[in-house]
Amino acid sequence: MSQILAYLGPPGTFSESAAVKYDPTARLIPMTSISSVAESVKMGTSHIGIVPIENSLEGPVNDTLDLLIQESTLRIFQELVLQIDHCLLAQPSVRIEAIQAIYSHPQALGQCREYIQKYFPNAQIVATLSTVAAVEKMRESEVIAAALAPARAAEIYDVNILAKGVQDHPNNETRFVVLGLEDHRRTGRDKTSLCFSFDEDRSGLLYSIMGEFALRNINLTKVESRPTKESLGRYIFLIDLEGHREDALIQEALAGLRLQTSRLKVFGSYPRFQG
Amino acid sequence: MSQILAYLGPPGTFSESAAVKYDPTARLIPMTSISSVAESVKMGTSHIGIVPIENSLEGPVNDTLDLLIQESTLRIFQELVLQIDHCLLAQPSVRIEAIQAIYSHPQALGQCREYIQKYFPNAQIVATLSTVAAVEKMRESEVIAAALAPARAAEIYDVNILAKGVQDHPNNETRFVVLGLEDHRRTGRDKTSLCFSFDEDRSGLLYSIMGEFALRNINLTKVESRPTKESLGRYIFLIDLEGHREDALIQEALAGLRLQTSRLKVFGSYPRFQG
Repeated sequence: MSQILAYLGPPGTFSESAAVKYDPTARLIPMTSISSVAESVKMGTSHIGIVPIENSLEGPVNDTLDLLIQESTLRIFQELVLQIDHCLLAQPSVRIEAIQAIYSHPQALGQCREYIQKYFPNAQIVATLSTVAAVEKMRESEVIAAALAPARAAEIYDVNILAKGVQDHPNNETRFVVLGLEDHRRTGRDKTSLCFSFDEDRSGLLYSIMGEFALRNINLTKVESRPTKESLGRYIFLIDLEGHREDALIQEALAGLRLQTSRLKVFGSYPRFQG
Repeated sequence: MSQILAYLGPPGTFSESAAVKYDPTARLIPMTSISSVAESVKMGTSHIGIVPIENSLEGPVNDTLDLLIQESTLRIFQELVLQIDHCLLAQPSVRIEAIQAIYSHPQALGQCREYIQKYFPNAQIVATLSTVAAVEKMRESEVIAAALAPARAAEIYDVNILAKGVQDHPNNETRFVVLGLEDHRRTGRDKTSLCFSFDEDRSGLLYSIMGEFALRNINLTKVESRPTKESLGRYIFLIDLEGHREDALIQEALAGLRLQTSRLKVFGSYPRFQG
């Protein structure tokens, strides 16, 4: 029986592509928000959920970080990296020279700025709430229009791909995490994600925490902070490190963290992604 | 003669409120993006510019961080903290019980989620590209509508404020920075903002850098990371610390940083904001 996989919809988004890449046999359920993906897994209406956590150009996906910080049931079971290729889509009859307007989400427009300036210096640029909404608006446009959107949206909306991979930076990748009720067993090539915070506001504390890892030669692959939402200037720190939470050295370091933090939460251990 | 101050427009945004609070006598020039605020100061068409850098609920404003990282001419001259109060605005004839639709930017809708669920459980929620666009769409709406927007937008668009401060978290503050061609002279109650990165990808390096500050009892008020845009998992670190870049201890620490980083940039020293 195929598993049920919740993702951040609608169909045609990069999250859907990530879900298909992760498990081509899964039954995919599109959700309207990152928190409803989590809810679906917690309620048992999906076996697992997939959400974006970080992009190589834009940085962290804050809704996912805040979900992991607040969440007490879900664990990270896997990670997955997807190359993000923006495509120029248009109705079947449209020639590329005739395009007068380009629709997309502000983030995609920003990632394709040089391409647009070079090939469509006079086009009207219209921001939409998502890349999929851009395809819908493009189809209703009164002037000859194109949309910047994932290739997958062309299949779903039955429009043409005029150009592929039009983003300015070639290294445009998004990291997704697969959420479930348990994390992954030890494989020997693992990562662990966690967060912590302090009651006191002393920078020496963060330094001391990082020492727990540095002194044991535990490599940190990510260090990030999010606001606590209590007041400006108070942060929750998020760390990714190499190793599994059951490894002896990591257990030692986590014991050290527990003594020095007011709050420590391990989001899970999972195999490192191999492209 | 009043100074010319560029800000992230359009008029009616919280950035405009911050600009008025910073200098009520300045001549305000609205710009369409954070980078065009910077451009205006660099070209000399404005004396200074004001941009948001951090919100207590949402975290960093990435466009501003990326601008500071790339920028070589501008310095942070001042900081300013503004309380963010979302208001419910509607046309003069509208009664609050009759509202069928609520327009706003997704961020403001998110910050007022509990308020909307409590008082408008059946209203249609419509996302717009900005809070000012929400007021425009609300005025054109075919059903009875309201918008979540700053109080200032009510003055400009001549609509009514039905409720004030409707955000779910009371501690909703945004920190702005004032950009100029020079940073601020030493006042004795200062902060310094900087960024650095490494060629090598070793977490021990970040620990060692933080040691330069911790061992001199220099308090860090912010630690953040941004992607380098080269590949997933490579970061630029941003730090705010207490003190002026001309203080002896901070000069020592910066000398230590220069030896250990491949890139170090001081965005400026400026007086700590006093509410």
